[in-house]
Amino acid sequence: MISPKYKEMLNQKSVIREISAYANKRGQEIGYDNVFDYSLGNPSVPTPEKFKEVAMRLLEEKDPLTLHGYSEGHGIWEVRQAVADSLKKRFGIPYTGDHIFMASGAAGALAHAFRAVSVPGEDIITFAPFFPEYKPYVDGCGANLKIVEADTENFQINFEKFEELLCEKTAAILINTPNNPTGIVYSKDTIEKLTDILRKKEKEYGHDIYIISDEPYREIVFEGVDAPVVSKYYDNTIMCYSFSKSISLPGERLGYVAVNPNCKDAELIVHMCTQISRGTGHNCPASLIQLVVANLLEETADLSVYEANMNILYKELTELGFICVKPGGTFYMFPKALEEDAKEFCKKALKYDLALVPGDSFGCPGFFRIAYCVPTEKVERSLEAFRKLAKEYNN
Amino acid sequence: MISPKYKEMLNQKSVIREISAYANKRGQEIGYDNVFDYSLGNPSVPTPEKFKEVAMRLLEEKDPLTLHGYSEGHGIWEVRQAVADSLKKRFGIPYTGDHIFMASGAAGALAHAFRAVSVPGEDIITFAPFFPEYKPYVDGCGANLKIVEADTENFQINFEKFEELLCEKTAAILINTPNNPTGIVYSKDTIEKLTDILRKKEKEYGHDIYIISDEPYREIVFEGVDAPVVSKYYDNTIMCYSFSKSISLPGERLGYVAVNPNCKDAELIVHMCTQISRGTGHNCPASLIQLVVANLLEETADLSVYEANMNILYKELTELGFICVKPGGTFYMFPKALEEDAKEFCKKALKYDLALVPGDSFGCPGFFRIAYCVPTEKVERSLEAFRKLAKEYNN
Repeated sequence: MISPKYKEMLNQKSVIREISAYANKRGQEIGYDNVFDYSLGNPSVPTPEKFKEVAMRLLEEKDPLTLHGYSEGHGIWEVRQAVADSLKKRFGIPYTGDHIFMASGAAGALAHAFRAVSVPGEDIITFAPFFPEYKPYVDGCGANLKIVEADTENFQINFEKFEELLCEKTAAILINTPNNPTGIVYSKDTIEKLTDILRKKEKEYGHDIYIISDEPYREIVFEGVDAPVVSKYYDNTIMCYSFSKSISLPGERLGYVAVNPNCKDAELIVHMCTQISRGTGHNCPASLIQLVVANLLEETADLSVYEANMNILYKELTELGFICVKPGGTFYMFPKALEEDAKEFCKKALKYDLALVPGDSFGCPGFFRIAYCVPTEKVERSLEAFRKLAKEYNN
Repeated sequence: MISPKYKEMLNQKSVIREISAYANKRGQEIGYDNVFDYSLGNPSVPTPEKFKEVAMRLLEEKDPLTLHGYSEGHGIWEVRQAVADSLKKRFGIPYTGDHIFMASGAAGALAHAFRAVSVPGEDIITFAPFFPEYKPYVDGCGANLKIVEADTENFQINFEKFEELLCEKTAAILINTPNNPTGIVYSKDTIEKLTDILRKKEKEYGHDIYIISDEPYREIVFEGVDAPVVSKYYDNTIMCYSFSKSISLPGERLGYVAVNPNCKDAELIVHMCTQISRGTGHNCPASLIQLVVANLLEETADLSVYEANMNILYKELTELGFICVKPGGTFYMFPKALEEDAKEFCKKALKYDLALVPGDSFGCPGFFRIAYCVPTEKVERSLEAFRKLAKEYNN
């Protein structure tokens, strides 16, 4: 029969998508240039020119049967090795190809990680505010997503609330730093405190607790900000990465799972990922994309635009009286709305053609997300709209 | 905790993979040219030159932010429309883009179809011999895969056994014509008989029964063979297609779900597929690959090689006394082994550097699969090895 589960999911409208659709419609009416669409986390800077160069070279030179042939379920071995070498060089962690599983973006990587280290009924804990797709991802593997209330002072971890949720059933902790939607980077202190607690709890419960670290924004860190790599602090860390944001390839769906070599059963977990793929029908990412990106591991798109945008918006918004924790990276910021109901606030913003997303979608009401992955000139033009919006609240 | 389910799956070794690994190892010893590796269904003819041409043109001309940008969860709209137009033109069925969901190869397409039209605990029925990955695919969605015993006379459908398995819990029938591993094409008569039974049972049980039609070999049909398109015979048909075989792109993981426009809830099923993707973490196929292949919908690789190979092997093997139903398509054939235990038979074949796969893997003991997607000159050189093997049995 038609699955009631998936049919029902269709009724759970994504607020982000709705706002984005509204912005698009409005764009058709008044010209897209006149809509300040801050709704979607879609990179606004092109992939490095090298992508094209390498792709064209491979298409010219490589035997099509090899270029487009089946890769191993784990991903293409040379690509896995290249990813491991790059991570090892950058972070000093002794990854080898055996610790890497190529996945369809961070979504695919997370889906594999969740299934590998949890069983249905166990808990996966994450921290508000959080990327709303975590919920269907975790539901899909049969685990329970438990949400730790936000620390709205600085968007680090609310450890008191966190410890209340930890229990025997805790299989994994899901973190996302630099963070969507806040742009906040977890400090060394936060990471140390978190991992100390987990090591203590692993002993107390007599079983492993994994950190699943969602790191698509790892490369987008602003000047002067220290972004600690969680895998260096905790052995049982499963890193989930995507090339969507760092080299602006969201549609190509490429990422990976990198299991810390010091993680218990590290290589087993990578092998298990291939079995998980069999069950979900997603075998491996496109071979051409894997082979091209293996040549771009040390590249990024021109990410400086995001920092420029953040500085402009942060300065203006704080001057207008918005309360906002200054982002350390990503292309998001998460200010407090000027009224209690952020949904109402975002509705008012639309009057000025500002498309903002209420924090309710991220499990953190009262705040709103600005996805400032747009051209800088547009950010500048949008300031007047923010001023008008603030004026409605006498700010 | 480490998932016992996926850990356990690692112990279920794939016989096909083991034989292929042995053939590779042997190739390293005696030269790969001297190993007659008939183990894997990996296309042996390159993708059409047009793939390269279109890919290079898109890379040169298209804005990278569009070329590599997020596509809608259903797939890129223009690509879905192009697929629908092509299907409509070829088969006279009024598909529109709304009936198409772009998937990661046939594996991805099947994973979505199973989840859309069954709920855990329901039955999906298929026919031996069958592609062994059907088992983990169906297990992954929580349904039960029920296997109808083979009709070894002609590898059409054993209707008596089929009707015994049909029951209230039957959600869908999974068929694969042209078939892996037999190369057999279901006749019009078989399709009519099958669909008549299903329409009758739909009335009797008072619920829909879907045909999920796995069609990666649809384009590989031999001269004089009529390969009926199931969707023309049965409204509740969900076609699952892959470009892996027809245009030799197995590594690029592109396929689609095409829901018959006359299927009940056709468009709803397509929308549900996007929700299913959220749960499995596989969002959509790579955008570059989608956009290139949209230009290759009327193309095939040079598939004539497979027919040439089939003719050579069929002639020689039947002359050697093998019993074999003549394939109507694909690049497989499925002769009866010369001893009862096909596994022993395939072991003996390895002495002559012939890598064959026992039918046990496909739910049909006593037979073996030849995947003749290899160069024709190699097929010719392999005949002597088949002769020596037959001689062991005094054939």
